Amino acid sequence: MELTHFNEAGLPRMVDVGAKPETKREAVAYGRVLVNRDVFELIKAGDTSANKGNVLATAQVGGIMGAKRTPDIIPMCHPVTLTGVDITFELNDTPDNNGKYSVEITAAARCAGATGVEMEALTAVSVAALTIYDMCKAVQKDIAIENIHLLKKSGGKSGEWTAGN
Amino acid sequence: MELTHFNEAGLPRMVDVGAKPETKREAVAYGRVLVNRDVFELIKAGDTSANKGNVLATAQVGGIMGAKRTPDIIPMCHPVTLTGVDITFELNDTPDNNGKYSVEITAAARCAGATGVEMEALTAVSVAALTIYDMCKAVQKDIAIENIHLLKKSGGKSGEWTAGN
Amino acid sequence: MELTHFNEAGLPRMVDVGAKPETKREAVAYGRVLVNRDVFELIKAGDTSANKGNVLATAQVGGIMGAKRTPDIIPMCHPVTLTGVDITFELNDTPDNNGKYSVEITAAARCAGATGVEMEALTAVSVAALTIYDMCKAVQKDIAIENIHLLKKSGGKSGEWTAGN
Amino acid sequence: MELTHFNEAGLPRMVDVGAKPETKREAVAYGRVLVNRDVFELIKAGDTSANKGNVLATAQVGGIMGAKRTPDIIPMCHPVTLTGVDITFELNDTPDNNGKYSVEITAAARCAGATGVEMEALTAVSVAALTIYDMCKAVQKDIAIENIHLLKKSGGKSGEWTAGN
Amino acid sequence: MELTHFNEAGLPRMVDVGAKPETKREAVAYGRVLVNRDVFELIKAGDTSANKGNVLATAQVGGIMGAKRTPDIIPMCHPVTLTGVDITFELNDTPDNNGKYSVEITAAARCAGATGVEMEALTAVSVAALTIYDMCKAVQKDIAIENIHLLKKSGGKSGEWTAGN
Amino acid sequence: MELTHFNEAGLPRMVDVGAKPETKREAVAYGRVLVNRDVFELIKAGDTSANKGNVLATAQVGGIMGAKRTPDIIPMCHPVTLTGVDITFELNDTPDNNGKYSVEITAAARCAGATGVEMEALTAVSVAALTIYDMCKAVQKDIAIENIHLLKKSGGKSGEWTAGN
Repeated sequence: MELTHFNEAGLPRMVDVGAKPETKREAVAYGRVLVNRDVFELIKAGDTSANKGNVLATAQVGGIMGAKRTPDIIPMCHPVTLTGVDITFELNDTPDNNGKYSVEITAAARCAGATGVEMEALTAVSVAALTIYDMCKAVQKDIAIENIHLLKKSGGKSGEWTAGN
Repeated sequence: MELTHFNEAGLPRMVDVGAKPETKREAVAYGRVLVNRDVFELIKAGDTSANKGNVLATAQVGGIMGAKRTPDIIPMCHPVTLTGVDITFELNDTPDNNGKYSVEITAAARCAGATGVEMEALTAVSVAALTIYDMCKAVQKDIAIENIHLLKKSGGKSGEWTAGN
Repeated sequence: MELTHFNEAGLPRMVDVGAKPETKREAVAYGRVLVNRDVFELIKAGDTSANKGNVLATAQVGGIMGAKRTPDIIPMCHPVTLTGVDITFELNDTPDNNGKYSVEITAAARCAGATGVEMEALTAVSVAALTIYDMCKAVQKDIAIENIHLLKKSGGKSGEWTAGN
Repeated sequence: MELTHFNEAGLPRMVDVGAKPETKREAVAYGRVLVNRDVFELIKAGDTSANKGNVLATAQVGGIMGAKRTPDIIPMCHPVTLTGVDITFELNDTPDNNGKYSVEITAAARCAGATGVEMEALTAVSVAALTIYDMCKAVQKDIAIENIHLLKKSGGKSGEWTAGN
Repeated sequence: MELTHFNEAGLPRMVDVGAKPETKREAVAYGRVLVNRDVFELIKAGDTSANKGNVLATAQVGGIMGAKRTPDIIPMCHPVTLTGVDITFELNDTPDNNGKYSVEITAAARCAGATGVEMEALTAVSVAALTIYDMCKAVQKDIAIENIHLLKKSGGKSGEWTAGN
Repeated sequence: MELTHFNEAGLPRMVDVGAKPETKREAVAYGRVLVNRDVFELIKAGDTSANKGNVLATAQVGGIMGAKRTPDIIPMCHPVTLTGVDITFELNDTPDNNGKYSVEITAAARCAGATGVEMEALTAVSVAALTIYDMCKAVQKDIAIENIHLLKKSGGKSGEWTAGN
């Protein structure tokens, strides 16, 4: 077992994918932001009333633009011609054991290319989460971002993959 | 209580910090990447032997460059003239209840300016974590990034703040 | 009378502002997007109802992020540490002689530095206008962007300046 | 009639174009910069004499590089592999009713892809216009950018489209 | 004989490559960094021992990320979907006539597209060389970067080309 | 003697310059591009006649914009608020022993800050040289970039430094 992202000298490389066929690919990633009740209510108010200040709309734009910057940010990622990106948020108003509420983020990225778009979906989730953090940090200092992972991917040689199966 | 990142029309703005004094500021953030034993051993081998393929060295560069891109990525972040960024990794070889090992990431960002550098430290952690994910995803598909949060910050009007106090 | 942005060989340069004092500066710019009645109503609906699709919220984020990219985009612009950016939209529902309605955009940029922020304010307006264009172009093909200009600026040696005076 | 750039929650998305065929596409956009006689003569001198300081050559480079940055700047734009960009300027020395002279900018962008390149052509015009503004603003403070719009586009399902027909 | 990168007005353009077929292309470029014995030994120690500070690992990441930024940096370069980038370093411990040792850099870039990837390979070499310079400049002030050129290219209409033949 | 760009774990860091005073700093760098007679004459014609295609004007813009991107490109470089950048070219029409003519590039960068601007000046030279290469490579395949080095620097603790003294 070895890491394909290194050359013979042990230094990182952008793996050659020139021999892979171009197929339609999709990846869906997940993450959540844990906030206290005050922040949760502020986010909810902005999401459901016009012009109260919509944190999620800003996080949506940040996350989608972040997905496009993935190869600029993640050192060994291939450039990818994304054909679509979408993000959905769910406001989970059952607090966890620590009294924290969660903003759940799911991002889907698609392309037709020789490499997968897992990193684009994961970057979309990460930037959306960081944007929520940024916009709420003046109200709550101990916000946390949790459980960023891949939900599923399809396309390419390895075919369909779903988390937890 | 309200979110300062919005203007009177309820649309997001880059908050005016022109009246704040320039002070020395520091922020330290944390996050961890949960991997299986195989990936953990590969990362450890690269960290401790020359030219085995050093995932952490690549994540370090990605994270530091990511910190510099923070205002390009996080929509309402102010541009900041960072005076220093550093990242340290800890390889925690006691598995958790699910048999996962963790790569712990701590990033510190510093500036002399009118706004804090929390987002820069958190972005450094996030990009470092995503880089580790990217470089190991061919070996393990269910890697997770957990518990990204601020450890402490200093400087500015609000002074010293430490998590959990 | 000559253009200061050129050196002795007649090639462009980034003018040396090292001898200028750092002062608080502000610039306010204006522009408008001319749309037909259908597009105007769609933009208005998104601005006044929750979750109808808020074109202006996206344009706001695009414009503010665009202001931060000004020195990356405008060849001879100095890097500037912006201390604040805000954009306001006005939906003008009196049609002009050609039956077009206008979305009026006003952007304000602020910094404390050795150069003005006119270009940052003008870039914010331009990117906000292009974002509105992009999001509505599937519904109307002949959208136009008009009358981008500086409304006023303050700070620096030349002091206060207001358009039309 | 609705805006396709929004998902079911009313938040913006990068529209999925994965099902669209890749065709050759072109878009041509227009805009103009209104300047006073002094600035007009300075621009003209630089365009017609060697080494007098060529504002248009700088605007040309800015505009073409701006076209390449379109998906970085316009939030919901798809990444596009541009196959060609060109800009032409016309110096119109008949003053308008206000005594202003115009620098007319026409930009053409081409790609082979699943989405059009209107935004790339419009961004090229906008950045070229802003560059002219930037380089002449020390001489004239009330420069204006006018009438940015699409002249024509071809390729894709909707085929040929020309303004004013 | 003329330069294809200019339009009829003599201004630069991004040459239209829309009529060129997409083929697999590769380019390999070379350059070297001349350093004194102290710097050479520090670089060598970092390359051969774990955790001594690996300049080359940082230069490798910088160079590969730089290759991806080529169209952002080189004004008339086409965007290119790179399918692979790799860099190798050779530490040449025979000093030249001036007592300088050389770090030799070879970078290979690959794509499947309508334009070559010479500039991507050359940019990878240049950024790797500048990174080495940056990381060692505190120890030696008169480092020099020499002999950046293309070693070979393949693919496209002009077929295989090798330097010196 | 050791490299300051590494932390205790041997991984690269952005060195903390927060304790350094802000002073006026300047750096001047040099490099040259070796071309054959045909390319040399084409470059000269563009430099001395209007609208023949001015390679140097494009390289000038590329180089200055490149200087502004330095912290985005060079991994451990600090962000710097450049106060001025200029580039001058000299066309040396005495061929060297191999019959090559040289385009000599000198770039000066200035800032008021806590770190030097050597890397900005060197990046300006490198990008200008790569731009010349790019625009002429259709005519000559064996262009070389030579002798990139620092000519002098001033400001900061180490004061004035001039190459070769």
